[in-house]
Amino acid sequence: MNYAMIRFVVARTFQLVAVLLLLPLMVALVYAEYDRALIFAGLAAFFFAVGFIGALYKPENRIFFAREGFLMTALIWIVISLLGALPFRISGEIPHYIDAVFETVSGFTTTGASILSDVEVLSKSTMFWRCFTHWIGGMGVLVFMLAILPLSGGSTMHLMRAESPGPSVGKFLPRVRGTARVLYLIYLSFTVAEILLLLATGLDLYEASTLTFSTVGTGGFSITNAGINPYPLAAQIVITVFMIICGVNFSVYYFIVTKRPKEAFQSEEMRWYLVIMFGVALMIAIMIYRAGIQETPGMSFHHALFTTSSVMTTTGFATLDFNLFPQMSRTLLFMLTLLGACAGSTGGGFKVSRLIICVRRIKNELIFSTHRKSVRQVYMDGHRVESTTVKSVTTYVAIYIFIYVASFILISVDGFDFETNCTAVAATLNNVGPGLGMVGATGNYGAYSLFSKIILSLDMLAGRLELVPLMILFRPKSWRGD
Amino acid sequence: MNYAMIRFVVARTFQLVAVLLLLPLMVALVYAEYDRALIFAGLAAFFFAVGFIGALYKPENRIFFAREGFLMTALIWIVISLLGALPFRISGEIPHYIDAVFETVSGFTTTGASILSDVEVLSKSTMFWRCFTHWIGGMGVLVFMLAILPLSGGSTMHLMRAESPGPSVGKFLPRVRGTARVLYLIYLSFTVAEILLLLATGLDLYEASTLTFSTVGTGGFSITNAGINPYPLAAQIVITVFMIICGVNFSVYYFIVTKRPKEAFQSEEMRWYLVIMFGVALMIAIMIYRAGIQETPGMSFHHALFTTSSVMTTTGFATLDFNLFPQMSRTLLFMLTLLGACAGSTGGGFKVSRLIICVRRIKNELIFSTHRKSVRQVYMDGHRVESTTVKSVTTYVAIYIFIYVASFILISVDGFDFETNCTAVAATLNNVGPGLGMVGATGNYGAYSLFSKIILSLDMLAGRLELVPLMILFRPKSWRGD
Repeated sequence: MNYAMIRFVVARTFQLVAVLLLLPLMVALVYAEYDRALIFAGLAAFFFAVGFIGALYKPENRIFFAREGFLMTALIWIVISLLGALPFRISGEIPHYIDAVFETVSGFTTTGASILSDVEVLSKSTMFWRCFTHWIGGMGVLVFMLAILPLSGGSTMHLMRAESPGPSVGKFLPRVRGTARVLYLIYLSFTVAEILLLLATGLDLYEASTLTFSTVGTGGFSITNAGINPYPLAAQIVITVFMIICGVNFSVYYFIVTKRPKEAFQSEEMRWYLVIMFGVALMIAIMIYRAGIQETPGMSFHHALFTTSSVMTTTGFATLDFNLFPQMSRTLLFMLTLLGACAGSTGGGFKVSRLIICVRRIKNELIFSTHRKSVRQVYMDGHRVESTTVKSVTTYVAIYIFIYVASFILISVDGFDFETNCTAVAATLNNVGPGLGMVGATGNYGAYSLFSKIILSLDMLAGRLELVPLMILFRPKSWRGD
Repeated sequence: MNYAMIRFVVARTFQLVAVLLLLPLMVALVYAEYDRALIFAGLAAFFFAVGFIGALYKPENRIFFAREGFLMTALIWIVISLLGALPFRISGEIPHYIDAVFETVSGFTTTGASILSDVEVLSKSTMFWRCFTHWIGGMGVLVFMLAILPLSGGSTMHLMRAESPGPSVGKFLPRVRGTARVLYLIYLSFTVAEILLLLATGLDLYEASTLTFSTVGTGGFSITNAGINPYPLAAQIVITVFMIICGVNFSVYYFIVTKRPKEAFQSEEMRWYLVIMFGVALMIAIMIYRAGIQETPGMSFHHALFTTSSVMTTTGFATLDFNLFPQMSRTLLFMLTLLGACAGSTGGGFKVSRLIICVRRIKNELIFSTHRKSVRQVYMDGHRVESTTVKSVTTYVAIYIFIYVASFILISVDGFDFETNCTAVAATLNNVGPGLGMVGATGNYGAYSLFSKIILSLDMLAGRLELVPLMILFRPKSWRGD
């Protein structure tokens, strides 16, 4: 175990948080929230100093292996959440530290689950910081850090592999740092584009930027208690479009930017993603129109598509309270909560590509069980999927169920109803945010006990880091030296 | 596709049902229910005649392959259910044929889910037939039929593999017919033993035999509306013991009978099964004692163990309405619903051995993801588990989820609440019977639409046949000739 390297990386994480806090500091100054400005400035200075001292001695051995990569990833995410929660706690806007941590984990993991029943009382700068965590977490804290970490080539790969969402980043491995830069440029372009479009629909800069952070990170924190409902239809449509865009595998955009459109449109995952999304949206539109929730077919489809893309991309925004939809719509939305968006997007969940691999694996198994000898391969995008990938997908399912079941049992100690517990675990483990019942679109997680909030926070982290890193962190054996 | 063989086997199934109907016919005569006796006698004669004609020409080619084995298994189970439902329908005791089929499928698959809100109005002979289906289905219709089917050695193996519960019957394959006979003798001994013990606790022969059928088949149909509550404590304890016994892998008893006690007690599955069962029973005992549901620790443990073993062995009997237990107990019971009993027992569910394989697979994956090169094997009972078995277990999980999700979405069209739908699918797919909410221990499935009843009936069959045979039956390609 390369402890010196871990110490060094954690120190750098302190400095990173210090730098990130400068943005809400500026917002506090602009809106004359000087007490808040003092908190942000003080914390930034303190974190920077701690990081500076911790990083004074650079480790001689800068190589680390997969296990350390996983451990470090999990650790960085926990550290950044513990530090990021302090502004909420110190300002007193979230009085209990565990609540503040829950909210911050929810932010960084782009979950969007909240313990606040009234978000409108937050100060402008604190609210800004809350939404900004979505933006940071969306593309990944580590990709962000690759620029400031002095790593040898192979080691960055281990970090990248631990943090990136979805079964495979194989295509990107050779030139990690260059790729990371291109990905961030794409991400930044989407951010700027959405802010400009939202400004054009009549929102002010503050609203436009905070909502954009929550959209492109597929997070879901909103700045009003009524979610996205108060904004004009045009703004809602802009948000819908950008949610859908950010749920697509970023490799598609990478291929377009690097002028390989053929490869971009070969993506079976994107096609399935869009087919499922529009298919379900259409079904829900029909159901809510029939149920009289919306008066015109057009508006029914608008709200159905908004809700569907919000849930499937694991954003969690709401225009309507989908808790009140017909039971079949609620069931479909719950299923999309479990499914999630594309691998390599800013969205969470099980991922469409895993679904594709599973379905093809099942098909093979059915053929296999009748023709003993034929071992068929799983294909995707015209390429053979490596058998280790297929294996790890099916094992992912098993680990997922294991964590799901354990969390579900543990939080049931609070005595809330089956639907609430069942969807609360799903919504946090898949980084969606709202579930059904008490944790529905108009509810929040405030009623859970501190114990359950810690469990659900760990679920959010486990979901964002694709389960394995966190499982390794909590396995005592991992920490033993070589 | 060996159609002649399929025709022949279906004809023999008609004859089998005819023979089985003789037992309720006798009961009808004893209790002077002559109109019922006429129905049973008439149907038996008719089925026998149809079967006789259909089996006149014996197929020349008596060999069939795995795919045909799976198809045939699924087909026989559907035929036997459709025929077995007729007595309910013709007597008018269950007025709608789909309801009668649901009840019969529930019987043969040893689920114990009922559409009847009042079972006490049933005639004695009909009630007897209802419970007797549990007994028939418990050990497997096909094992039963092996004696009357003229098959070549390899073909019986395909049938056995398709019907037997759990990941592996490898040990038994060489001498299938001999093994089947020993298994039936063990099953019969348990049946006789429980009947005698129940008689000793003061029950009459009718009560003792019907309850025994429901117990040893781990079915769960009871003959009173209050379940097992009206019977004396001693009878409840006898039933508890036999539920636990019949949830153990029958290979354990096979080894004991064939004087290989070492191999019998090597079974890791049995140990995990007992540890989980008694562990959960203890937890639930504490919870219901604290909640004041039972007044003494002793009775709390009795009812907790009864409920836990009833749910885990997928029997579904109830002494208390566990719908009213504390939320954590309900959650634990729901999890046991999903888990189920041992492979190779009369119980259903995911099976403890699959859990063991999954847990070990996860452990390997965690080690694997940090040490790229180490490919570890999964071990059970000291032997290496074949990688195809491990693969098919993880794929089983995927297929299971697929069927679960599809059923859950489809039955949500009826608009019942989340908990009811969620547990209804689990309770039928795992052949448990009662779920939570509306389909809890004191509820029933009567309120579901005919469409949902058909879906849930298919789930029961899919669960009993371990998913694959039914999936193959509904795959059009399977029916095409070679």
